[in-house]
Amino acid sequence: MTSPLRFDSFASVSGFAKDLPLPDQAAIDAARARQAELTKPPGSLGRLEDLAIFMAGWQGDAKPAITSAQALVFAGNHGVCAQGVNPFPQEVTAQMVANFEAGGAAINQLCGVSGAQLSVIALDLDNPTADFTESPAMSEAECLDAMRRGAEAVDPKADVLILGEMGIGNSTVAAALANGAFGGAAADWVGAGTGSDAAGIAHKASVVATAVARHAATSGLTQLAALGGREQAAICGAVLAARAARIPVLLDGFICTAAVAPLHVADPAFLDHCLIGHASREPGHRHLCASLGKEPILALDMALGEGSGAALALSILRGALACHSGMATFAEAGVAGG
Amino acid sequence: MTSPLRFDSFASVSGFAKDLPLPDQAAIDAARARQAELTKPPGSLGRLEDLAIFMAGWQGDAKPAITSAQALVFAGNHGVCAQGVNPFPQEVTAQMVANFEAGGAAINQLCGVSGAQLSVIALDLDNPTADFTESPAMSEAECLDAMRRGAEAVDPKADVLILGEMGIGNSTVAAALANGAFGGAAADWVGAGTGSDAAGIAHKASVVATAVARHAATSGLTQLAALGGREQAAICGAVLAARAARIPVLLDGFICTAAVAPLHVADPAFLDHCLIGHASREPGHRHLCASLGKEPILALDMALGEGSGAALALSILRGALACHSGMATFAEAGVAGG
Repeated sequence: MTSPLRFDSFASVSGFAKDLPLPDQAAIDAARARQAELTKPPGSLGRLEDLAIFMAGWQGDAKPAITSAQALVFAGNHGVCAQGVNPFPQEVTAQMVANFEAGGAAINQLCGVSGAQLSVIALDLDNPTADFTESPAMSEAECLDAMRRGAEAVDPKADVLILGEMGIGNSTVAAALANGAFGGAAADWVGAGTGSDAAGIAHKASVVATAVARHAATSGLTQLAALGGREQAAICGAVLAARAARIPVLLDGFICTAAVAPLHVADPAFLDHCLIGHASREPGHRHLCASLGKEPILALDMALGEGSGAALALSILRGALACHSGMATFAEAGVAGG
Repeated sequence: MTSPLRFDSFASVSGFAKDLPLPDQAAIDAARARQAELTKPPGSLGRLEDLAIFMAGWQGDAKPAITSAQALVFAGNHGVCAQGVNPFPQEVTAQMVANFEAGGAAINQLCGVSGAQLSVIALDLDNPTADFTESPAMSEAECLDAMRRGAEAVDPKADVLILGEMGIGNSTVAAALANGAFGGAAADWVGAGTGSDAAGIAHKASVVATAVARHAATSGLTQLAALGGREQAAICGAVLAARAARIPVLLDGFICTAAVAPLHVADPAFLDHCLIGHASREPGHRHLCASLGKEPILALDMALGEGSGAALALSILRGALACHSGMATFAEAGVAGG
């Protein structure tokens, strides 16, 4: 990579917005022309056609392909758990990381089905971020460090990058990031997460409202540091590194989408190469996707995280590219109607 | 198969309703109990959990698996094309069958991605059914013959069956079957199909209204003969043969779902083993799915047929089973919260 992406300071990260690699318009045009020649009624493959054209732009190839798919799951722990927002103990984060490493979690199985190479990166699980109801969750240096670790985990040779997360308490973190980025009432962004009941949800909303009010002066990357966690910062770093390498990204559900909301606030173009894999059952996710102008590929009533929805969506993306690159044209097949 | 499914007469087919194989309740209970023990929050895999439990019931195994997935695409031609409902010539049906056989169509690529074995069965393409605005499309004998051919194409060793269709003019046939089965105005069930414009859609609705009025005395299998085509009858036969062998079925989109509407009218239990792969862009499909009480797995704005949406949904089903059968339990993984 010869890109100007650097994690020296928030200012240098933001400066990358001036030098963002763009999709290849000639490849997009050629891919769109090819779609019109394939043996099917125009537009009949719907979203699959859009996905193929999107991939053509980022790969700079009218017939894009996925040879190597990478999945990264980042894990972190959160000081806000001191506020009792989480029904499960924080030790579960490390236990689930061990489960990922042993191959026993949902994301392991789903990467197996869709053909993605999974790596799990645990970020200082013994050192949770600060409680953001009392102070910024991370200093700028801590946030940049997590972003850098996210970026360094990206394989620049991958054809597509799946991102996911694990962290007890992080549905509260996600709600705070979404609320901080897009406003509205805290309750609009808070859901059950991992098993909260109605009282727990109300408490989470109160905690989120307190945090967002405390850090109201922050925005973009300073808000990521104030309200985010290490896994959210790592996801942002990975998204930026993927962009530097022109690798399209499949974001997972609510928490993964909320993680990149600060990048959208910093510059919406930071997320042009990102798709959203799955519309979470968490009620804030639809609103969040609309705020980002992105329509999730799948809607299977899931709310797990780990990258599970993105890994499932990879199979749809593979289907899109297989049709685009593998189908016969009207002329090749001798079918009338082209 | 020792089932009583026979295609001697509509009465004998209907009689199969008294002897339908049922899902294995013990396997369902065991699968549901297993879901509660897997290393994830309860219910967090959403639709994937339902799919795994559904498959457990039909396979009679608490840990179901897909070793062999069969895809069948039936093709037919339709006398109603004499009414000018189709912008493409009927020769395209045979041309697309040749394209399927040469591996050049969308369904070939999608079966490749999801791992299904595809067979294409062309049903008397040189002998279209009768124009159903003037007479029944098929005699009882013709309809039974197509049903039998559909049934005979089913591999009784398959773990799941994908069904699709091809036939110029068959979005009009589908609208007629849906309207005949579920009433309402013809226009509620008619869409653009393969490239009709507004005037074409209005003409299709008029043709459908004429046909449904003419055959108002028919119902269930007699309506299938009156308003259907050979590929619709073959789909019904394949659905019944799959049921006899306890093979779950992934129906495709609008036309494939409409094809089995007569079975629903004959007895809703005929379709208990059927899932719908994809919510078509054809406006009648949502209404049709609701009438059948089934929620499609995917919604990707497609309207192609061929089994394309069902083949994509197979990857989701594989993901569901991989999680269900491959994930560690809380006890196995040493994760708190089980």
